[in-house]
Amino acid sequence: MSLFEKHKNILNKAINALHERTFFAAYPEHPSPTIYGESADEDGRKKFQSSVGKKFDELKQSGAAGWVGVEESPYMQEPLNIQYPSVSADTLIENAKKAFHQWRKTDVQDRAGILVESLERVKARFFEVAYATMHTTGQGYMMAFQASGPHAADRALEAIAAGYEELSRFPQGVIWDKPMGKYNIKLDKEWRAVPKGIGLVIGCSTFPTWNSVPGIYASLITGNPVIVKPHPGAVLPIAIFIAEIQNVLSDNGLDPNICQLAVDTYDKMISKELAEHPDVKIIDFTGNSEFGSYLERLEGKAVFTEKTGVNSVILDAVDDVDKVAANLAFSVTLYSGQMCTAPQNFYIPENGINTPNGRVSFDEFAQKLVDNINGLVDNPKAGPFVLGTIQNKNTCSRVDKAKEIGGKVWLESRSIENPMFKNARISTPVIIEVDATDKEKFSKELFGPIALLIKTKDTNASIALAKEMALKYGAISCGAYTTDPGVKEKIADEMALAATPVSFNLVGGIYMNQNAGFSDFHVTGGNPAGNASFTNPEYVIKRFTWVGHREPAKV
Amino acid sequence: MSLFEKHKNILNKAINALHERTFFAAYPEHPSPTIYGESADEDGRKKFQSSVGKKFDELKQSGAAGWVGVEESPYMQEPLNIQYPSVSADTLIENAKKAFHQWRKTDVQDRAGILVESLERVKARFFEVAYATMHTTGQGYMMAFQASGPHAADRALEAIAAGYEELSRFPQGVIWDKPMGKYNIKLDKEWRAVPKGIGLVIGCSTFPTWNSVPGIYASLITGNPVIVKPHPGAVLPIAIFIAEIQNVLSDNGLDPNICQLAVDTYDKMISKELAEHPDVKIIDFTGNSEFGSYLERLEGKAVFTEKTGVNSVILDAVDDVDKVAANLAFSVTLYSGQMCTAPQNFYIPENGINTPNGRVSFDEFAQKLVDNINGLVDNPKAGPFVLGTIQNKNTCSRVDKAKEIGGKVWLESRSIENPMFKNARISTPVIIEVDATDKEKFSKELFGPIALLIKTKDTNASIALAKEMALKYGAISCGAYTTDPGVKEKIADEMALAATPVSFNLVGGIYMNQNAGFSDFHVTGGNPAGNASFTNPEYVIKRFTWVGHREPAKV
Repeated sequence: MSLFEKHKNILNKAINALHERTFFAAYPEHPSPTIYGESADEDGRKKFQSSVGKKFDELKQSGAAGWVGVEESPYMQEPLNIQYPSVSADTLIENAKKAFHQWRKTDVQDRAGILVESLERVKARFFEVAYATMHTTGQGYMMAFQASGPHAADRALEAIAAGYEELSRFPQGVIWDKPMGKYNIKLDKEWRAVPKGIGLVIGCSTFPTWNSVPGIYASLITGNPVIVKPHPGAVLPIAIFIAEIQNVLSDNGLDPNICQLAVDTYDKMISKELAEHPDVKIIDFTGNSEFGSYLERLEGKAVFTEKTGVNSVILDAVDDVDKVAANLAFSVTLYSGQMCTAPQNFYIPENGINTPNGRVSFDEFAQKLVDNINGLVDNPKAGPFVLGTIQNKNTCSRVDKAKEIGGKVWLESRSIENPMFKNARISTPVIIEVDATDKEKFSKELFGPIALLIKTKDTNASIALAKEMALKYGAISCGAYTTDPGVKEKIADEMALAATPVSFNLVGGIYMNQNAGFSDFHVTGGNPAGNASFTNPEYVIKRFTWVGHREPAKV
Repeated sequence: MSLFEKHKNILNKAINALHERTFFAAYPEHPSPTIYGESADEDGRKKFQSSVGKKFDELKQSGAAGWVGVEESPYMQEPLNIQYPSVSADTLIENAKKAFHQWRKTDVQDRAGILVESLERVKARFFEVAYATMHTTGQGYMMAFQASGPHAADRALEAIAAGYEELSRFPQGVIWDKPMGKYNIKLDKEWRAVPKGIGLVIGCSTFPTWNSVPGIYASLITGNPVIVKPHPGAVLPIAIFIAEIQNVLSDNGLDPNICQLAVDTYDKMISKELAEHPDVKIIDFTGNSEFGSYLERLEGKAVFTEKTGVNSVILDAVDDVDKVAANLAFSVTLYSGQMCTAPQNFYIPENGINTPNGRVSFDEFAQKLVDNINGLVDNPKAGPFVLGTIQNKNTCSRVDKAKEIGGKVWLESRSIENPMFKNARISTPVIIEVDATDKEKFSKELFGPIALLIKTKDTNASIALAKEMALKYGAISCGAYTTDPGVKEKIADEMALAATPVSFNLVGGIYMNQNAGFSDFHVTGGNPAGNASFTNPEYVIKRFTWVGHREPAKV
């Protein structure tokens, strides 16, 4: 049975899910022993631990000139000393160019089968990926498992499904039969979906697989070889994916260089050299706005970015203010605000928030938010695990200096102890009040656990500011709380014009930070936060070109 | 009955045709009295003649500051003196911004109904459009009728169909129901296809409707208001389309400024002012490479271009060399080589072309091509009508100077008489032999009736040159003649990598210049000729943004 036959069912389900957009997951998000096996967690942890201090020798790619690796664990604040093959940009490009022709001539069904098979193999390593993610990104265990394992695999499957569908949308060939009156002109036409060329995927330090696998799999399913350049600080999780892709390629007689890992170090980054190379035709990037915008300006390339944004919460009227404060406190605290979807700017009218029991004042709400954050952070069974750690030391410095923004400090950042990792790098959220007139204070992304409570004239002013921030500085998510259908539609309409998805009235166990594969589009373009657009048709279409040939039909 | 109900059938047929890609045409290309009415031609001619020297007062758009118009007829070499409303760039933008909200909130079915209705109304004016096209572009009557009337309307319908389909590909809303073990999380999700903003369509002088209506209708169906800036030399054909669009908008209580005509003059062009305006988010352009590449570099806009290209013909082996020479002679002569799909560079091996009767030498083939061109040009019943006229005086000068390229002149350009227009601007094709080593001579577009016969080492060298030209300078079409399946696949594969569609072995009444709506993609990107991509999904998807909102479901 071919790999396509083996995985046809899951592929068809995934294509249906893309269009139904109801809940679908091929990879269960619960790290349960009944799903993944009794010893899966323990085995994964041991496998990760055994990688530390060693060479990562699983890759089948060629041309390494040495070994490099500078990851360190934010939980231990110690180097992991894992070494990866170091391959020069020139060699990576040459390898990819050679692999290109074999891969583009591989039938799309075979490509799909191979790619789904690689995800199935990674599934057996989800726990190892989870520990690798914890000790590079600083995420808590649950997030590290879900985001880097099943959620990432589902996003990858989504990209495979979208690419497979798009490549199948037009016939491979037809007889074109045009009546001309006394005779017909008959042409034999064929269409080829021609891959653009080498794809480059540049990863980030906080979500090394979730943000990278969609681009990797989208470029691969459309026939392009891929070079994956992870953030130097977060290599291992994606290296495991790539090792399994290379294994399946190799098992099927294909060149493992179809998907290569390109590890570099902070002092000698190779991103620019790769990105500017004329043979690199597709770039997927997650990271800072400056580098992302530079990539977007490169000519003759299809560039997909997820850059920074200023995410807003608009507070107008709520049913249960305590549930709202609890929900938002969790959103601010989750992975210490290091998610691209985390809220930063909270717009609260100076007259307060409407509730069924009358108005809750600005100050009352601020205090409730603070109390909920403290309650969460100080709960030893929740705080350390929800917060995770701070991936990058510089984020801690920025949090420390947040007070200098000016304005009432409702909550100072501090550290707490993680019971398992005494040396974990932790900064709890800092909450600062600023006035809507001090626009420069909140007109930028403040990455990490920093939230601003912005006092506005009224909800219309809040909406206008949230829209302006999104249009000028980008936004990836927005939270809004209102019980008035007119206000709701105004927020929905204005934020839609700013290309920002809105989560309305979330309470309980669902948060504006969360984003579900096969249902929520992610960064669809239209504001400066980027155009990654997991996974709408544009995301895959721009990776290949339709070319049609024709000749007189042999009748 | 709504306009959507009225036109639902044609829309569904068009959507099916997009995917079947067999022959489909909603608007018959034959200018037959039995189809279009006994007096349609005569009425159209009279209507055109009555426009000459007058104000074009059909438009319903607002804010004109005066009247301008500098068209002249290449058949008469006299000004037409037709005057159009002159509207400043600022007023055009303000009008469009106001109209935007009404149009984006118009249901996509209503938009589709309105747009198809406008085509049905233009159908009644196809002959008027034909004469307007003849006397601005210089095309022959048959081409002017077909390209500007039915073929353009079919391309417009194709864009409406592609947009309508794409906007319907995802649900407007669903309940997302995620099992969490002991309970379910239910979210009420909705998706909005948010139009990007103002669309600007910049037309060319040779195909004022065929090259412009796809962009106009693609932007309109996806909810964007459109400003159409025609070439100053070819306004009337597209003005008629816009007048009918405005009529249908107005009849349906909508702002006619949803689609505005922006006429300028050579000494005061407003293209840049419009293109650079921050509210202009989509640009469609047909014209020269320099301006097209400038537009492509504008940030934050979706830009679709059709620029110049160097189209090749690869001659390897033929069944009937005379039929091939006749076919290619017609391709070179048709509209005096002023089509974006016309052949320019003919690659012929120094050892000649294989035929069932032995080799035809380079010189023999050259002479056959020359003889066929002369036979066509000198036939008073064919020559003037196939050639049409030269749209732009500068093209004549370039043709006159073509001899200076250097190399044997196989055929000199001359003028012939058009029996109906004594003053018609005519230059017949010039044919020059150059050697493959003189690459700089054929490494650029030589617009107009200029063909180069390039002597190559062999067919492999021909393929390599055709591919190199396409990759470096762009190509929109390619002709190839071979009887060897291996050579054919090599050409198909190499030219596909250069994103160039190949017409193989065309003889008889079908030419490489021709391009059929609903079947042949046009300029799909991947080489420097542009990315107009009539009409693949990318062409419509980039004109709007998917935005999803969600809230807890009210169970």
